[in-house]
Amino acid sequence: MNENPKFAVIGGGSWATAIAKMLCVNVPEIAWYMRNVYAIEHIKLQKHNPNYLSSVEFDTKKLRLTNDINEAVAYADYVIFAIPSAFLGGELKKLTASLKGKIIFSAIKGIVPETSLIVGEHFHQEYGIPFDNIGVLTGPCHAEEVALERLSYLTVACGDQKKAKVVSKNLSSHYINAKISDDIIGTEYAAMLKNIYAIAAGIAHGLGYGDNFQALLMSNAIREMKKFIRKVHRMKRNINNSAYLGDLLVTGYSVFSRNRMFGNMIGKGYTVKSAMMEMSMVAEGYYATKSAYTLNQEYNAKTPIIDAVYSILYEGKDAKNVFKKLTEKLD
Amino acid sequence: MNENPKFAVIGGGSWATAIAKMLCVNVPEIAWYMRNVYAIEHIKLQKHNPNYLSSVEFDTKKLRLTNDINEAVAYADYVIFAIPSAFLGGELKKLTASLKGKIIFSAIKGIVPETSLIVGEHFHQEYGIPFDNIGVLTGPCHAEEVALERLSYLTVACGDQKKAKVVSKNLSSHYINAKISDDIIGTEYAAMLKNIYAIAAGIAHGLGYGDNFQALLMSNAIREMKKFIRKVHRMKRNINNSAYLGDLLVTGYSVFSRNRMFGNMIGKGYTVKSAMMEMSMVAEGYYATKSAYTLNQEYNAKTPIIDAVYSILYEGKDAKNVFKKLTEKLD
Repeated sequence: MNENPKFAVIGGGSWATAIAKMLCVNVPEIAWYMRNVYAIEHIKLQKHNPNYLSSVEFDTKKLRLTNDINEAVAYADYVIFAIPSAFLGGELKKLTASLKGKIIFSAIKGIVPETSLIVGEHFHQEYGIPFDNIGVLTGPCHAEEVALERLSYLTVACGDQKKAKVVSKNLSSHYINAKISDDIIGTEYAAMLKNIYAIAAGIAHGLGYGDNFQALLMSNAIREMKKFIRKVHRMKRNINNSAYLGDLLVTGYSVFSRNRMFGNMIGKGYTVKSAMMEMSMVAEGYYATKSAYTLNQEYNAKTPIIDAVYSILYEGKDAKNVFKKLTEKLD
Repeated sequence: MNENPKFAVIGGGSWATAIAKMLCVNVPEIAWYMRNVYAIEHIKLQKHNPNYLSSVEFDTKKLRLTNDINEAVAYADYVIFAIPSAFLGGELKKLTASLKGKIIFSAIKGIVPETSLIVGEHFHQEYGIPFDNIGVLTGPCHAEEVALERLSYLTVACGDQKKAKVVSKNLSSHYINAKISDDIIGTEYAAMLKNIYAIAAGIAHGLGYGDNFQALLMSNAIREMKKFIRKVHRMKRNINNSAYLGDLLVTGYSVFSRNRMFGNMIGKGYTVKSAMMEMSMVAEGYYATKSAYTLNQEYNAKTPIIDAVYSILYEGKDAKNVFKKLTEKLD
């Protein structure tokens, strides 16, 4: 394996910006693709991403900024995708550069709408990438705290543990502790499902449920997540490890999570449409809810929380009534 | 068993007041013991506890208020203790009324300092109460939200499931969902240990660690709790049930928790002594830390978080250094 692998970051949002920052501690150069030409020019001139984590200063000599995804992909050995899952399909359509031999890491916490697959599975099925070349980058980690260099832990999962180690090593620093895992399916599903539970937490808050119920909800959510993931991919995993429980908590308890915020608006009486219009960022959990619900028609895991969120978001059911019934199913 | 059992609540604090409120929904009369004669007179005249949850209005016809613990104990079939563990020994010394045949429930989340036992074990060892007559009342539940009638879940554990059901039934209402458990040892240890983890969360916050680390800490705490409790009393339990994980979260994430507040002051640089002087309430976790640490010398569970808190609170170690080292042990 290449001793000094090359990295590309795909995306210009807050999580992509955080990943670029983390890599730049260790790597002499990265390719960084984003669609927004104005943002690229701003970073080149001002050393800051104007739109996300704008406090972070970059050493621009290290950045190969480009708005051509093919340039970034062609450059790198490791390509880290950090864009909303809803945009992934569109970005991949632009690809003419080959993905053969590339190691693809997903830092996307969602489902690809076109295929209803998590990102790793999408690359595997649609692009023939072997699972040994697919990885997942997961939290518990708010990008905002990476910007502040507050100690954060990441989990880097890959079928090939050597590749997980390469990524982990290149992300680690005095404020980043990145550990490795071989559970690429489980960690990615956890990252996706937690957004649904964050919406549920938001709805509960919006409806006036308090901290006691929030704790109860999270305690039920992690058990539900365990059941769901076990159906999807059975293997030995401790669901209380930070990639699963930690990631659930950092999102479910965050007042800044857009998923929780989205849920909160629903709980307060906004329609789904108006809540979505009100928010300028995509709430990944909205799509994740549909995918998880649909997928579970096949798996049949007992998922009362996902079912409740689905019926509110997609069947127009009244949040108050749905949660009243949900509270009777939780324990 | 008595069809209409009689209840006594021992204690005048916020949790005791919440329990009295919950019982009064279902029971025609309860005995309620508190030391403070002024508070008793105030409740009789004004229908509110002047010191705790003062928004709660009581139907005073239902209350047999007394500042004689023997009167309350003699009256009741079920005696629910809800006083700080540090005061339990002193209160029990006043007892002349027999505990024979009484069913003792602990709503105390701590260790009895004199014997280093959890309350259930203390009653069993020191008073010969059989485990079938010992129960535990646990959360996740802030008393403040009971006052607000916000939906809360309790766990009522007892060796004898029939007695657990009696208590559960008499606490339940449209805002209280009380489930039963047979794990009296595990639930009580969890209730005790969570206060140590809340202190740890407070210290971390005081030292400037953020939400990412908090989630990581809680994810480690629940795994540590599982290991500890398994050593103390091995049985089949799901540590992610609300009595364990839920209770940990409601405390660890609460900015109102006195344990977390105590930890926060330590993290901010207060000495243990000055932090204790500053607080007018007892931080149960302070005593719990010593007991858990001491106990674990025998059990030898891997408990880096408890060890860290212990070394800060009892060995005068610098919180910043201790947490720096702790962060290397967590994952």
